[in-house]
Amino acid sequence: MSAICAISTPPGRGGISVIRVSGSDSFAICDKALFVESERKLSEQEPYTLSFRKIYKGAEILDEVLVSVFRAPHSFTGENTVEISCHGSLYIQQEILKLLLAGGCRMAKAGEFTQRAFLNGKIDLSQAEAIADLIASSSAAAHRLAMNQMRGGFRDKINALRTRLLDFVSMIELELDFAEEDVEFADRNRLNITIEEISGEINLLIDSFSAGNAIKNGIPVAIAGETNAGKSTLLNLLLNEERAIVSDVHGTTRDSIEDTVTLNGTLFRFIDTAGIRETNDRVETLGIERTFRKIEQAAVVLCIEDIRKNIDEIEGSTLLMASKAKGKIFVPVLNKMDLADENEVNKKLSVLKQVFPLTLAISAKTQKGVEQLIETLILHANTEDLNGYDVIVTNLRHYEALNSAAAAVKRVKSGLSAGISGDFLAQDMRDCIRDTGEITGEITSDEILNHIFSQFCIGK
Amino acid sequence: MSAICAISTPPGRGGISVIRVSGSDSFAICDKALFVESERKLSEQEPYTLSFRKIYKGAEILDEVLVSVFRAPHSFTGENTVEISCHGSLYIQQEILKLLLAGGCRMAKAGEFTQRAFLNGKIDLSQAEAIADLIASSSAAAHRLAMNQMRGGFRDKINALRTRLLDFVSMIELELDFAEEDVEFADRNRLNITIEEISGEINLLIDSFSAGNAIKNGIPVAIAGETNAGKSTLLNLLLNEERAIVSDVHGTTRDSIEDTVTLNGTLFRFIDTAGIRETNDRVETLGIERTFRKIEQAAVVLCIEDIRKNIDEIEGSTLLMASKAKGKIFVPVLNKMDLADENEVNKKLSVLKQVFPLTLAISAKTQKGVEQLIETLILHANTEDLNGYDVIVTNLRHYEALNSAAAAVKRVKSGLSAGISGDFLAQDMRDCIRDTGEITGEITSDEILNHIFSQFCIGK
Repeated sequence: MSAICAISTPPGRGGISVIRVSGSDSFAICDKALFVESERKLSEQEPYTLSFRKIYKGAEILDEVLVSVFRAPHSFTGENTVEISCHGSLYIQQEILKLLLAGGCRMAKAGEFTQRAFLNGKIDLSQAEAIADLIASSSAAAHRLAMNQMRGGFRDKINALRTRLLDFVSMIELELDFAEEDVEFADRNRLNITIEEISGEINLLIDSFSAGNAIKNGIPVAIAGETNAGKSTLLNLLLNEERAIVSDVHGTTRDSIEDTVTLNGTLFRFIDTAGIRETNDRVETLGIERTFRKIEQAAVVLCIEDIRKNIDEIEGSTLLMASKAKGKIFVPVLNKMDLADENEVNKKLSVLKQVFPLTLAISAKTQKGVEQLIETLILHANTEDLNGYDVIVTNLRHYEALNSAAAAVKRVKSGLSAGISGDFLAQDMRDCIRDTGEITGEITSDEILNHIFSQFCIGK
Repeated sequence: MSAICAISTPPGRGGISVIRVSGSDSFAICDKALFVESERKLSEQEPYTLSFRKIYKGAEILDEVLVSVFRAPHSFTGENTVEISCHGSLYIQQEILKLLLAGGCRMAKAGEFTQRAFLNGKIDLSQAEAIADLIASSSAAAHRLAMNQMRGGFRDKINALRTRLLDFVSMIELELDFAEEDVEFADRNRLNITIEEISGEINLLIDSFSAGNAIKNGIPVAIAGETNAGKSTLLNLLLNEERAIVSDVHGTTRDSIEDTVTLNGTLFRFIDTAGIRETNDRVETLGIERTFRKIEQAAVVLCIEDIRKNIDEIEGSTLLMASKAKGKIFVPVLNKMDLADENEVNKKLSVLKQVFPLTLAISAKTQKGVEQLIETLILHANTEDLNGYDVIVTNLRHYEALNSAAAAVKRVKSGLSAGISGDFLAQDMRDCIRDTGEITGEITSDEILNHIFSQFCIGK
């Protein structure tokens, strides 16, 4: 394929930047466009070696660079690839790109290097997608999932599933071929057992999506409670905590309603319900309904109460909230402990702990107890059982393909019990095989491919 | 020196990032901290080659990376250096750094790799400083200056100067040694001629600073005129122009008073005098004084007038402004040409052009004529004669050292004409030699070094 180029390092200014050129003619283009003064051609440079070269722009030296050479098919893309490590000034980066474009390169589209790796059979589609996830991952768990997928864990699982589906179809089709001879290759009981197993595997993968989604997008934590209970202060505290840890990640994507934070390597997504539940006397209003809907999306609910309130009041509103948070991890948080004396704090804590063992007292203002709150979050949020799954689905496209496959399997199951003819069964099974094939890219339209790779960053 | 590590690519997320490790023990540290599972030790890897390796964090694969090896003294720092090209996720970058720190590396301070290159004699101080300038440069001219300096152009000039100074001193000192024998090694006339030449060279370098500063920080352009003349619209237009070209450069440093823009590769710094000159009837007020002071800092003055104003009024206020802009490139700009008919535009233009040949008519709103304005800026601003200088000083520290050297030379000159004794002359010359030595780092205190390198970006 013709050569494409892009800056592969993060955008901006730095010590060094790397510009990647890939394509069958990439050596010749770089030789002509950048290294015209170099004695040794790139095609003569040993693969996997570095050379120190000067890039000229007219008579002037534009930069002194280190150049790596990778020869097809032994490169990431599977094509001849040149990586130019230049000084990280914006001017130099731009000018090198300009020289490459003038020399016959084209700017790589987002994800196009990875797309070529896929098209050249270096990786399957689920692995390609995992590379984007790997780059985007900002927590240990998300990283682990992406790395496992990139290294082919998901592909192996899907391929095993496809093998079973193909076996099943071939049994049925064999039966069809010999239909007139009344041979029963495909014992209906065995078919039933097999399809139940396949169905179970697909459903396990589908089930893993909500856990996978929590890992990828953060475990959803609702912060509920009245505005004056100190929710915003607590939220800011938790988010500042995060900024200290991963300062560059979320600064740009923050909005006032949902925000993510990595605490000890676990990604949380806080759902702020601020300003919703301001009037206790209008319990049935839309506002409260919205709070409760937010709570439904959450895996964890922090119920913030002002510790200075009457204990009956605290208990009452906590119980109300808890009734809406069934099946969630529910953590009552008595805030403003700095404004109450120790006796009062201990007394109210012990009362609430009898009903809610996870109850904590904190001061969002002085940060007392916040460390403990974070520990509680990490400890209990992580008990969400991921161990039941050997492979976890994190990608919405895969999730949809699996759901479509599950629907096809369901049709097969009811077809089997209704005793419908083998061709219909085979057709449904083929749908199922196609659906799972879309995940690894065995069967994929250009449109889907373009959509997938357009979500990558440029230069990868 | 002990090993230091840092991310050398721009901060943030991207396709790939490069982590650099430098120090005598960098191979051993990386082997132990990152590549414990690799069969081949880094010390066995040929220099200037790449190897594909897996980084483990405990039992899990953290990343699959490409590793380059450079062996002392043949590396940028002059030390054993490892460059790890990893996937550009924030998580991976952080975890690799953590592993390196746990393995005995220390985080590199800003500029510390370059500092080591200097300390190990790979580059002199002016070259080290040029690397920071090179990375920061966002225009062709600034890049050219930095590249010339990085490649030693400035050092060669300073060293030639120092050689002349040393010759001069040795002549005087020889004379002192043989003082009692009444030998005149140092002919006073020849000394006079030599010191005049040295003085001329130093002053040429000092003079080059204002041109160099314009290149590095932008050619200062004042936009003067009444608020309703359309200055802000014009400024925004020029700055948007810039964003399209170098989107990442200035977004973060913008303030409302000064802003830089690269137009066709030339950096301009626009000095907005917005809101200052609102009332014509208070000509003597502080506001006008401030406008005029701003104009003094400028190399170019754009005097914006509303073309619909009476021609006498336009001429009057333009002449007033021009009287304050003596020695500057003065460009009257008749704005809002979209609101006047063609006849009126041409008439007023021709009247003003008789006095001010550079006069232009534009419409900041419809962008008509703005292209021509930019061309005028580029054409005339660049006539600032840089060709008189073979080396241009851009660094404030160098400028100050040169001024100090010039003062010492001046003392020598007056000493010579007053016929003071050779030891005093020699002392002043030694001051001058020390001052110029500070530029290349032959004589530099730790404090100055730390100050210089702290202004670098991390990872370089």
